[in-house]
Amino acid sequence: MTAPGYADSKDAQLKRLRRIEGQVRGLHRMVEDEKYCIDVLTQVSAVTKALQAVALGLLDEHMAHCVANAVAAGGEEADVKLREASDAIARLVRS
Amino acid sequence: MTAPGYADSKDAQLKRLRRIEGQVRGLHRMVEDEKYCIDVLTQVSAVTKALQAVALGLLDEHMAHCVANAVAAGGEEADVKLREASDAIARLVRS
Amino acid sequence: MTAPGYADSKDAQLKRLRRIEGQVRGLHRMVEDEKYCIDVLTQVSAVTKALQAVALGLLDEHMAHCVANAVAAGGEEADVKLREASDAIARLVRS
Amino acid sequence: MTAPGYADSKDAQLKRLRRIEGQVRGLHRMVEDEKYCIDVLTQVSAVTKALQAVALGLLDEHMAHCVANAVAAGGEEADVKLREASDAIARLVRS
Repeated sequence: MTAPGYADSKDAQLKRLRRIEGQVRGLHRMVEDEKYCIDVLTQVSAVTKALQAVALGLLDEHMAHCVANAVAAGGEEADVKLREASDAIARLVRS
Repeated sequence: MTAPGYADSKDAQLKRLRRIEGQVRGLHRMVEDEKYCIDVLTQVSAVTKALQAVALGLLDEHMAHCVANAVAAGGEEADVKLREASDAIARLVRS
Repeated sequence: MTAPGYADSKDAQLKRLRRIEGQVRGLHRMVEDEKYCIDVLTQVSAVTKALQAVALGLLDEHMAHCVANAVAAGGEEADVKLREASDAIARLVRS
Repeated sequence: MTAPGYADSKDAQLKRLRRIEGQVRGLHRMVEDEKYCIDVLTQVSAVTKALQAVALGLLDEHMAHCVANAVAAGGEEADVKLREASDAIARLVRS
């Protein structure tokens, strides 16, 4: 299988990432214009939440497709995919 | 006072934000090229951590300057600044 | 299936939870004895990390057993389990 | 000063911690009774959020009293307190 798990939501994810890129550029402008720290921080929290939404969306699709397919096929690949997903979840929870 | 608390580290923060903007653009490219979900997720975690570092840096400077000045001056403004900082910290901890 | 996904690691999880209960009791004692705020906060962070480790362990086992079994069996139950796991992951990431 | 910053809210914090201790004991019972993984995870998220509320409350009081007093007094102690608070915030954000 060459298509990634997120093939169906690819366009939606690309749109989200483009918006996040704009938000980060907005942050750069806020700092350049010496906007009030607390307002910059509020905006950083918004970008972090937007990135989390991208991550959770990708993870959903990954589990529903890549992991599910591997598990249905069984064997060692299923274990590898489950381990990989667990590690990615741990990184998200801890970041 | 017109300069924000982060005036001293402004250039460093701008550099970090420029790098983060590049990382988000890199994420966009990864999704466009249909890179493997787990690799995209690893990169999202890296960007989230980089944003956290920006936020913690801004907060440090904000407390060391804006909040500290307001507290030293005393009065109602001190309470306002402390409340504002607490709220910003709560948003960061919960995001 | 009546046994939960974490049946194999049940004893280890019980031991962790017992230790966490002791840590929370320790926090209570620290506050009662009016220990220094920062030391209490350091200990709260330690308990939060310990709880996260329990959660990630439970989630691993849940995916490797409950979700994997449902996916292997296929049908609607697979979708339900995947959805449920995604929601639990989102709660963990956001908490 | 011997009283910690949270002296005023000490009773409220002790009550919260006692409730959290009961929640952790409840978690232990859930795992012992082999409750469904997802239900255990939901409860773990609730406890994590309750601990976060304790931490944010302690931090508020710490900044409004210990840090504010040190800043008002000025000198090296102010820097030490600000640094300490920043480090505690970073630990909270990252945990």
